[in-house]
Amino acid sequence: MFIQIVDLLGTIAFAISGALIAMNKRMDPFGVLIIAFVTAVGGGTLRDVMIGIEPVSWMRNITFVYVIIGSATFAVIIRNRISYLLKSLFLFDTIGIGLYTVVGIETGLVAGLHPIICIAMGTMTACFGGVVRDTLCNEIPVIFREEIYATACILGGITYFILLHFFDNKNYLFIIAGLVVIIIRIIAVRFKISLPSLYNSDK
Amino acid sequence: MFIQIVDLLGTIAFAISGALIAMNKRMDPFGVLIIAFVTAVGGGTLRDVMIGIEPVSWMRNITFVYVIIGSATFAVIIRNRISYLLKSLFLFDTIGIGLYTVVGIETGLVAGLHPIICIAMGTMTACFGGVVRDTLCNEIPVIFREEIYATACILGGITYFILLHFFDNKNYLFIIAGLVVIIIRIIAVRFKISLPSLYNSDK
Amino acid sequence: MFIQIVDLLGTIAFAISGALIAMNKRMDPFGVLIIAFVTAVGGGTLRDVMIGIEPVSWMRNITFVYVIIGSATFAVIIRNRISYLLKSLFLFDTIGIGLYTVVGIETGLVAGLHPIICIAMGTMTACFGGVVRDTLCNEIPVIFREEIYATACILGGITYFILLHFFDNKNYLFIIAGLVVIIIRIIAVRFKISLPSLYNSDK
Repeated sequence: MFIQIVDLLGTIAFAISGALIAMNKRMDPFGVLIIAFVTAVGGGTLRDVMIGIEPVSWMRNITFVYVIIGSATFAVIIRNRISYLLKSLFLFDTIGIGLYTVVGIETGLVAGLHPIICIAMGTMTACFGGVVRDTLCNEIPVIFREEIYATACILGGITYFILLHFFDNKNYLFIIAGLVVIIIRIIAVRFKISLPSLYNSDK
Repeated sequence: MFIQIVDLLGTIAFAISGALIAMNKRMDPFGVLIIAFVTAVGGGTLRDVMIGIEPVSWMRNITFVYVIIGSATFAVIIRNRISYLLKSLFLFDTIGIGLYTVVGIETGLVAGLHPIICIAMGTMTACFGGVVRDTLCNEIPVIFREEIYATACILGGITYFILLHFFDNKNYLFIIAGLVVIIIRIIAVRFKISLPSLYNSDK
Repeated sequence: MFIQIVDLLGTIAFAISGALIAMNKRMDPFGVLIIAFVTAVGGGTLRDVMIGIEPVSWMRNITFVYVIIGSATFAVIIRNRISYLLKSLFLFDTIGIGLYTVVGIETGLVAGLHPIICIAMGTMTACFGGVVRDTLCNEIPVIFREEIYATACILGGITYFILLHFFDNKNYLFIIAGLVVIIIRIIAVRFKISLPSLYNSDK
């Protein structure tokens, strides 16, 4: 129940973020809808298919479809407040990865997978909708190049499994893990922290 | 039975369309074969994997493999009649999406999915082979940018479910839904109808 | 058992090859890890998902995860010996496709699939990690454009099924088929053999 609400909120956040990016690429209304869809359900779909949960989540719960269509429509309607949108985009995206990391970890736990695989599932749920989105928009996925993004999800996942040794209430753990992801990402962006470069700076 | 024939015809149409586009990109014979394959089975594979029908259709029916290899070879042999091919490409592609939309809806119905999800499955079956094809050819999928394409599939799917309230014979319904897709696409291309733009025209 | 060792060796080879290419694209450490991962498990994941083996192999065996992280780290550490790396890249990649072709054929056989589909599964296991890698790096997959690559896998697969009529010991057959793939690829690259072009040379 708790996880479902989290999942829905993440879906709204990602659908809006996807629609905004598609409009940035000046796609037609159908393209905007599909990119919103792919961004919102891409990571979870990949996760479900790889674990073997089929039909995948959003196909068994028509609510998701309505929520995505509604969110994309909302994004289209408010599209002209661009400057306001850019800040929202970051916000929605950040909330989305926090929520989805938690949903992905929970799905992995239910399927009885190894903690490391659960963290991978959480990270995949959070990040791969964006990877598919960027690939369809013909760009190198942004998460491979810049900023703390997937790293925040991984750290949130590790936090979850460390705290699991000390606490019992899963819901609290999920909230904490999700907040860790969101806070790390916000701090990293605000203070321009990124992973150490592998390359000599002089290029 | 009826659906299988429709499926085979769609496969031929899409395999030829894929091979033509791969040759346009001057790929080698293996690349042409793979792109023909991906265009023909990509949408259906994605659909089957997401619904949980595995091994996916074409792997259980070797006929599809022969048909795709044959169609791609045929496309390679007639490759020099370029001007003739461009017109055929449109024709094959349009017939293909009409047929595949119907196959996808039927697959969703058999799996007991919600009508909206069935329409999504039909549209995915019809359009996502092309999306994968364009992505592999390193282009933004054409269906996100121009023309009535997926929209025709969606309208065909809606037609199907509306008529389902009035008629009983599924085969007729499938034929009508497929024709609706094909006719909408032909009319849209001939009269240059596209979805309303979300953007100011002055850019 | 034998197949598992072959699988692990292929994983090491591909993880290193993926990490090298990601560093070539100057990705950050996380990007390097993910591309190493995708290159190593992408083809097998696609194969497992399409056959219906879920959770997919690497998720059921945490060893793969450790091996990939170790291989990627190793590649990062030795990254400055560039000239040495380029030669190794080819070597690792070639060994990888030989090993993975065999693993893919075996997986198809166990699932009771048609020999042609088994060869397709072998080729997919060997080549599609690279296809996903190139797609994520925003390039037309190299295997569609140049050189004998997938063709070597297909020929190795055909060799396997021909020899199956004469010999009984599967392990030997797998070794021979793998070697056929590796040798064909090495000969093709050394003597610059490629598939016949479909196009007039004057362009």
